[in-house]
Amino acid sequence: MTTYNTDDEKFMRAAIDEARKAEMRDEVPIGAVIVCNKQIIARAHNLTETLTDPTAHAEMQAITSATSYLGGKYLTDCTLYVTVEPCLMCAGAIAWSQMKRVVFGAADDKRGYHTYCANPFHKKTEIVAGVLADECGSIVTDFFRRKR
Amino acid sequence: MTTYNTDDEKFMRAAIDEARKAEMRDEVPIGAVIVCNKQIIARAHNLTETLTDPTAHAEMQAITSATSYLGGKYLTDCTLYVTVEPCLMCAGAIAWSQMKRVVFGAADDKRGYHTYCANPFHKKTEIVAGVLADECGSIVTDFFRRKR
Repeated sequence: MTTYNTDDEKFMRAAIDEARKAEMRDEVPIGAVIVCNKQIIARAHNLTETLTDPTAHAEMQAITSATSYLGGKYLTDCTLYVTVEPCLMCAGAIAWSQMKRVVFGAADDKRGYHTYCANPFHKKTEIVAGVLADECGSIVTDFFRRKR
Repeated sequence: MTTYNTDDEKFMRAAIDEARKAEMRDEVPIGAVIVCNKQIIARAHNLTETLTDPTAHAEMQAITSATSYLGGKYLTDCTLYVTVEPCLMCAGAIAWSQMKRVVFGAADDKRGYHTYCANPFHKKTEIVAGVLADECGSIVTDFFRRKR
């Protein structure tokens, strides 16, 4: 875990915008963007209900988009911003992509990767946790509160 | 880990057929099928190179196909057959799908889920390992031997 900068907040706000799009579709509101050379190259939000596909998490779609855009399987010069700690599936996908950095907002003590495995990532991947964590987390908790 | 039956061998042969299709495309030869009510409802093989997508493992595509076919996010009445032990990403996807059974062939001591996490699956999921393991494993080892 390391410190973060104002760019990280800026890009996390773009991921939050994606989470809000998921919310408008009545999807669990989690969003992600992937950044390369300070530019957003992929944006995605959770679409598991819309697509009836349990693999359609924001991170998975963002990785598929970014690798398609770059024309290669690896994201070694990219940063993934995601509003909530990745689950084990997404952590595994991040590992395969050899992502340079992962910046997430709120921790997920129930389904986040850390509840299963301390470090599932590629050994060179830097992890930054807690960027705009309160805002990222409250989008999800408010969503489930309304569902009850 | 439990015993397996002749149906398991039959469906693993269908997964091996998929692995052979991957091999013909010069992809790491891993194949999968998903079975519901003794019928194959999804077939897939690794396409990570063809699609330049690190998430395009056989299992991921098979889960996406099967949930699309059934029109629901859960595969609680299905069995996944895959020629090689799922990686962490695929294990996470299997967990989200709440798959009833997972039958795999060869163990993967390098990238298989067991090297990271003893049980990443849904608590009701039954795991059967080692079905036609030698054949499933040798398809992959022969592939990498030819690559050297």
